[in-house]
Amino acid sequence: MKVIADLAIVPLGVGLSLSPYVAACERVLVEAGLEPQLHANGTNVEGDWDQVFAALKRCHEALHQMGAPRVSTNLRCGTRTDRDQSLDDKVRSVEEKL
Amino acid sequence: MKVIADLAIVPLGVGLSLSPYVAACERVLVEAGLEPQLHANGTNVEGDWDQVFAALKRCHEALHQMGAPRVSTNLRCGTRTDRDQSLDDKVRSVEEKL
Amino acid sequence: MKVIADLAIVPLGVGLSLSPYVAACERVLVEAGLEPQLHANGTNVEGDWDQVFAALKRCHEALHQMGAPRVSTNLRCGTRTDRDQSLDDKVRSVEEKL
Amino acid sequence: MKVIADLAIVPLGVGLSLSPYVAACERVLVEAGLEPQLHANGTNVEGDWDQVFAALKRCHEALHQMGAPRVSTNLRCGTRTDRDQSLDDKVRSVEEKL
Repeated sequence: MKVIADLAIVPLGVGLSLSPYVAACERVLVEAGLEPQLHANGTNVEGDWDQVFAALKRCHEALHQMGAPRVSTNLRCGTRTDRDQSLDDKVRSVEEKL
Repeated sequence: MKVIADLAIVPLGVGLSLSPYVAACERVLVEAGLEPQLHANGTNVEGDWDQVFAALKRCHEALHQMGAPRVSTNLRCGTRTDRDQSLDDKVRSVEEKL
Repeated sequence: MKVIADLAIVPLGVGLSLSPYVAACERVLVEAGLEPQLHANGTNVEGDWDQVFAALKRCHEALHQMGAPRVSTNLRCGTRTDRDQSLDDKVRSVEEKL
Repeated sequence: MKVIADLAIVPLGVGLSLSPYVAACERVLVEAGLEPQLHANGTNVEGDWDQVFAALKRCHEALHQMGAPRVSTNLRCGTRTDRDQSLDDKVRSVEEKL
């Protein structure tokens, strides 16, 4: 089952500068074989369900290993059976209607 | 790794009455050994990471089998290494300060 | 326009114990004339759109005044024109189908 | 108070093709004087708090006028008092660490 997801992963208890933690998550996602698309409030990925959620788990583990005692994620994800759709398809289908 | 999560699972393309689908997800979560706490905008669960996310996957599969061509989830989740905390602890720690 | 919303308001840069901040938000919501329903991963409210979102703004302002340099919110909200629905209706409609 | 937000606005009860509704929201955001940055799972905006949330309200109203009986939004937003930060700053600060 393919899933498209938008991950916003936030470490708590590490101060205000979160970008090193977000960068660490990007590396974890790439190592998981995903092609993360970073945006200003999260990161979009697409892939097999198990691959995506195993990568999310590794992101939590990586941030804990970097010293974050709490890690909080807000995730949006979608699956569909009617047709295949990519991240780029989603953006394009809106842009065609603007 | 223990995770606390709040799941809001929405089927698309099935009309306006979503409660049968939410009820189906509750049953999936119970069958997964979780004790879901339904609230007005989602369902809280706590458990081992793999148990919780395997249950979420089964929710998506169950709604597709019920005929929903698209299933969209918004999830909040948190892990922490500093101490153990339950769903009830989280509510109680706030209520003590009101 | 009535809105039902689930607010998860998180201060960043204040350490790990967030419950005093969540409690402060509860008080802001009550002062705004709402009847917040606290749960383990957020707070449900219902009311007029402008009332709810003015209260959310005051929550951000209150947490900044308490010393939080960053405040992050994750919000789910819904409006509907087909019929009136309360927070309790939403829970009940699912529970009837369990 | 400046806010950075990520809006995912979903009409329910209108079938499976949501892109015309997302496109309508983009137009509402532009008319509100914002410069929306569409991505695969939402739209990022930045601006004054009141401007951003008035625009979100108009998005809900616009989708209801297009015939959607239910409109559901998932929103992430952040305010900060320690320094000014733009959408582009947020992406750049991560990319510098990759």
